[in-house]
Amino acid sequence: MTVARPSGRLPEQMREVGIQRGYTRHAEGSVLISFGETRVLCTASVENRVPGFLRGKGEGWVTAEYGMLPRSTHTRSDREASRGKQGGRTLEIQRLIGRALRACVDRNALGERTITLDCDVLQADGGTRTAAITGAYVALVDAVNWLKARNEIKRDPIHGAVAAVSVGIYRGVPVLDLDYPEDSDCDTDMNLVMNDGGGFIELQGTAEGHAFRRDELNDLLALGEKGIGELFAAQRAALAP
Amino acid sequence: MTVARPSGRLPEQMREVGIQRGYTRHAEGSVLISFGETRVLCTASVENRVPGFLRGKGEGWVTAEYGMLPRSTHTRSDREASRGKQGGRTLEIQRLIGRALRACVDRNALGERTITLDCDVLQADGGTRTAAITGAYVALVDAVNWLKARNEIKRDPIHGAVAAVSVGIYRGVPVLDLDYPEDSDCDTDMNLVMNDGGGFIELQGTAEGHAFRRDELNDLLALGEKGIGELFAAQRAALAP
Amino acid sequence: MTVARPSGRLPEQMREVGIQRGYTRHAEGSVLISFGETRVLCTASVENRVPGFLRGKGEGWVTAEYGMLPRSTHTRSDREASRGKQGGRTLEIQRLIGRALRACVDRNALGERTITLDCDVLQADGGTRTAAITGAYVALVDAVNWLKARNEIKRDPIHGAVAAVSVGIYRGVPVLDLDYPEDSDCDTDMNLVMNDGGGFIELQGTAEGHAFRRDELNDLLALGEKGIGELFAAQRAALAP
Amino acid sequence: MTVARPSGRLPEQMREVGIQRGYTRHAEGSVLISFGETRVLCTASVENRVPGFLRGKGEGWVTAEYGMLPRSTHTRSDREASRGKQGGRTLEIQRLIGRALRACVDRNALGERTITLDCDVLQADGGTRTAAITGAYVALVDAVNWLKARNEIKRDPIHGAVAAVSVGIYRGVPVLDLDYPEDSDCDTDMNLVMNDGGGFIELQGTAEGHAFRRDELNDLLALGEKGIGELFAAQRAALAP
Amino acid sequence: MTVARPSGRLPEQMREVGIQRGYTRHAEGSVLISFGETRVLCTASVENRVPGFLRGKGEGWVTAEYGMLPRSTHTRSDREASRGKQGGRTLEIQRLIGRALRACVDRNALGERTITLDCDVLQADGGTRTAAITGAYVALVDAVNWLKARNEIKRDPIHGAVAAVSVGIYRGVPVLDLDYPEDSDCDTDMNLVMNDGGGFIELQGTAEGHAFRRDELNDLLALGEKGIGELFAAQRAALAP
Amino acid sequence: MTVARPSGRLPEQMREVGIQRGYTRHAEGSVLISFGETRVLCTASVENRVPGFLRGKGEGWVTAEYGMLPRSTHTRSDREASRGKQGGRTLEIQRLIGRALRACVDRNALGERTITLDCDVLQADGGTRTAAITGAYVALVDAVNWLKARNEIKRDPIHGAVAAVSVGIYRGVPVLDLDYPEDSDCDTDMNLVMNDGGGFIELQGTAEGHAFRRDELNDLLALGEKGIGELFAAQRAALAP
Repeated sequence: MTVARPSGRLPEQMREVGIQRGYTRHAEGSVLISFGETRVLCTASVENRVPGFLRGKGEGWVTAEYGMLPRSTHTRSDREASRGKQGGRTLEIQRLIGRALRACVDRNALGERTITLDCDVLQADGGTRTAAITGAYVALVDAVNWLKARNEIKRDPIHGAVAAVSVGIYRGVPVLDLDYPEDSDCDTDMNLVMNDGGGFIELQGTAEGHAFRRDELNDLLALGEKGIGELFAAQRAALAP
Repeated sequence: MTVARPSGRLPEQMREVGIQRGYTRHAEGSVLISFGETRVLCTASVENRVPGFLRGKGEGWVTAEYGMLPRSTHTRSDREASRGKQGGRTLEIQRLIGRALRACVDRNALGERTITLDCDVLQADGGTRTAAITGAYVALVDAVNWLKARNEIKRDPIHGAVAAVSVGIYRGVPVLDLDYPEDSDCDTDMNLVMNDGGGFIELQGTAEGHAFRRDELNDLLALGEKGIGELFAAQRAALAP
Repeated sequence: MTVARPSGRLPEQMREVGIQRGYTRHAEGSVLISFGETRVLCTASVENRVPGFLRGKGEGWVTAEYGMLPRSTHTRSDREASRGKQGGRTLEIQRLIGRALRACVDRNALGERTITLDCDVLQADGGTRTAAITGAYVALVDAVNWLKARNEIKRDPIHGAVAAVSVGIYRGVPVLDLDYPEDSDCDTDMNLVMNDGGGFIELQGTAEGHAFRRDELNDLLALGEKGIGELFAAQRAALAP
Repeated sequence: MTVARPSGRLPEQMREVGIQRGYTRHAEGSVLISFGETRVLCTASVENRVPGFLRGKGEGWVTAEYGMLPRSTHTRSDREASRGKQGGRTLEIQRLIGRALRACVDRNALGERTITLDCDVLQADGGTRTAAITGAYVALVDAVNWLKARNEIKRDPIHGAVAAVSVGIYRGVPVLDLDYPEDSDCDTDMNLVMNDGGGFIELQGTAEGHAFRRDELNDLLALGEKGIGELFAAQRAALAP
Repeated sequence: MTVARPSGRLPEQMREVGIQRGYTRHAEGSVLISFGETRVLCTASVENRVPGFLRGKGEGWVTAEYGMLPRSTHTRSDREASRGKQGGRTLEIQRLIGRALRACVDRNALGERTITLDCDVLQADGGTRTAAITGAYVALVDAVNWLKARNEIKRDPIHGAVAAVSVGIYRGVPVLDLDYPEDSDCDTDMNLVMNDGGGFIELQGTAEGHAFRRDELNDLLALGEKGIGELFAAQRAALAP
Repeated sequence: MTVARPSGRLPEQMREVGIQRGYTRHAEGSVLISFGETRVLCTASVENRVPGFLRGKGEGWVTAEYGMLPRSTHTRSDREASRGKQGGRTLEIQRLIGRALRACVDRNALGERTITLDCDVLQADGGTRTAAITGAYVALVDAVNWLKARNEIKRDPIHGAVAAVSVGIYRGVPVLDLDYPEDSDCDTDMNLVMNDGGGFIELQGTAEGHAFRRDELNDLLALGEKGIGELFAAQRAALAP
């Protein structure tokens, strides 16, 4: 069974992925990642302090914040700073990004410092959270390399890699890496976060229309694994010397 | 392979489930649900108005709010009303409850009215969000029956049933319906929301420790399906005339 | 002169009072109190810290927070946590509860710890603040007994008992313990907080309709003293071994 | 029995009362009231709109807001606008002022307009809320006279007068009109709001130290009635043509 | 070229300036300043602490807060404390006042203490920020004299004087010290802050209508210098022994 | 007299200016402007509604919002959305941008629509507000051209051009277009907004160290006029077909 994706992509085809390191100059890691027309700026900032609940334990912390520029979207959204609070979707996404990245960090090896991953969407076309996780990983590696180059840490706190992709059922067909036209018109939307050992870190599936079944889930997971494999390759290429 | 669960339960054993309808008197639906020591009061309130984005469309809305009483937990938590905002976890849970319940409602049949499901945790011992979804479904049915008894709606807007349960990998063993001691010490925690046609509505899995693999996922889904089957039976028994 | 109270009660007749200790399991004191259909969950939480203005003085603190579940009332009220602030009525009531309970506590004997009384209204039918004070006293005693059982305090910080009741002038007749139909339609509404030595701790009277006179005040105080006497008996019975 | 009041006043002696009308020029009523060193600016503002719950009912509304300038007090207090919320004491006082003034207004005669009484404390020395109520009454009369002079209302919506005073037990002796040194060191503090027909509108007594008894209450009420009588005379003198 | 100013003043004529020291009693400096009908209460409060970024550096801090009483204006404005935040205009003005006053203070000579200048507008008729700066300077001098009288500081931290005035182009004519009718109907509005050595501290000009030219700017600066000279004389007279 | 600028620039030399139109795809106008290392994304969004105070008047509105990405700066700043409010500096800057752009717009010709200029700093190195104004002008022109291309407006609402630059006195020498090392270490900092007819729209000068004098002001204005001339050329080049 086939269906025309609005973009003309094949069901198992990802959008073009771009990873540009050093996009801005102040952050210890700064990556502009693009999944097609979705563009997210991911910066990693190192600070020599940890949240209160970790103080004095010799452990570090990795956390994330997420935001969309007001006109990154088709119609302008309110600026959250001006509204006076972050919405539920924003908080949910930044909690997800933080959990995903902590999954590849040995916080004892990091020492009592915090790395904050700021993921700001410059342009949105679906998949901003998966692009953010995938790009934030590269920014995190750069920040850790910055620490290593200054001899501030002894052993590498990063084990493995982390990447994320969305999959969904669009007009009855499982497809990989939903763009906005698909995302706003699909039956099931699932975000996968995996490590490069093939393990699942997060798996969040939502049936927007009809509930999905085990066999559909299996198809989606297979697509996702394929896509994440390509993302690991893109991360490695971007980080290659 | 076996492991001692702190409660002495078998891996595939749920806690005792209690569903008490009519727990408070003002709400159109009011259910106290317990999963063991977890107790959540779920009320359904009917109001003859809809949010702005639905006004004049002839459609209804179902939404949820979630809260924990400050001392529902082992140590006292700050009161969110006093802190001046709901935390990210709260927003995430109430968005989940709302999506889950909307999945079984025909909003055109509901007409231009809103049903708000307030899920307030009186006592927490793990699994508050899954208990909330399972109990809110019963409160929702009571509220819809109240509307039907008053001839305010013509056809039943509820199709099927919705219930939720958590599963996880505790000390290497997949277990069903995590209580707090398990939840705070497990490798993987997954929440399943399903309908009684066997379809998945939500599936949210998080690896807290090691990433989980496909076969573990399969085991978890099987456990969850079993537990949710028992919850549907409990809902039906509670709703029986 | 007589008047039919909506409930059929005599003017000097209180609603049935229920006091259930150990209603939830985590708090050091946990009491469900009911005045007729009004039901308030009062928990006492012990913490080994005091507010900044008391630090290092060897004195303890007793404070209260109050909330209504959104559908404890006839029509649903906004959730204060979601609105982002506690209303004036809420703040006023929780300040009153705190002052009332501090009136029976020797804060030096308590030592540098805080007892927080959370009073959450599960179902409202008038008199929530007086029920809260009366129930919070029992929860406070349980929390102090918990401290004594663990030998954390040497001498009993509680002197005497505290209880509260409302009185009012309903259709020209002074009545005891107003329920919601009376409260929303009375000329004068007064809340009395007393200790079991017969002294007044708080006295707050408001003329909603015509201003009240000295002789009416005297009648109201007499009714209130009678009701509070019954509440002290109910507290003693609940606390009896 | 006698006690030296810090000010040298007799127990039944009020501070000097000053009422200056037309203190500022824009408000329809603008009164600077002083009770000794306590100085409160009370303005009455007329607006041709009512809150949502009164719209279309032909009734008016009277409400109050209260604030203290940051350095009206002995040590500087945080500015509530800068802290981002009004404290519980502020909300409690402004609710009291609003109720007190509504007690002398026929809201049907006022028509669909709102009179807002802003009571801003320029200098605090105890009794700010009683001065505010007493001064706001004069500002309210001026605003109503402004409406009458423009023929905007047909019949006078004000019936009788309203004034307020504090009484307390200072070192065992009932005294009238507590100043700050007495207020911060007294056993019982009571605020009385009365109308000029001798009726009580509000009565709020708090035992800070030992609980007060019926005979003490009677002494306090007698003192308060005396003081309020003097305040009515001062209001009449200020309003005399 | 001439134009009738609404007040009948000449283009180069300031409003009458009044400076009343000791207007309230608690603050270390307390000044009521009036520029015609504009009246601002400026208090200076001394506290023995500094903001975090200065702690331990031996330096002091001078800061300002600004507010308008709700009915200081022609129509009532919302109370910022009740709205829950200070508006942009308020923040902009209080930042300006703080910078202006810091320009004449040697913060090392002040030592580790903060002087807060609260500028509260009792009545507004244009020029509230310039009146606030001019009055706050006098309050600041009084607070510093209070410190000197108690031998808390060794050398005078104040060098020179600071004052401010507005100028503008009203109906084509440069005029000095705009009142509200002029301010709300002018083409260009400029606020000047100067020291008594003839230097500019702040210069903020805004073209509301047509953009202004160099020669107009020169005219405005000349007018401003004249007005500020008169304000320095008024400050000196007010501070004279 | 000469001084080494940290960048090696001559006193009257601007940084390289880059203006890239169409930087993002959803906004009606989208410009990335750079002044050296300072990079600001300026989007113009058209909406067919106006603020309440303009409704029904046939007039349009132009407004601006400003934000800095948390790691656009040397050290990470708090995210304003997360802190729950925009700081005073942010509000001040966005008010300035809005006023500056409204100065070149005929709001009647615009019709009842709002153009919002979002200026988000991707990388900060001094002069973000002047870059924002200069870039927002180009985005505004693009948005107006978009409206014209759709025949939604009849006559061009834009008259002339607007640009902004900073000037300052750095180590005694007047210099043009301050970068961050100069900005954080200069005596006087001034922002100029001008139109291409040579008129001043805004002029904001602040003496950080010593107060500046008339002759210094004249030097600064001359430098600023030169720089703004170059900016108009850059805008014209960017907008050329």
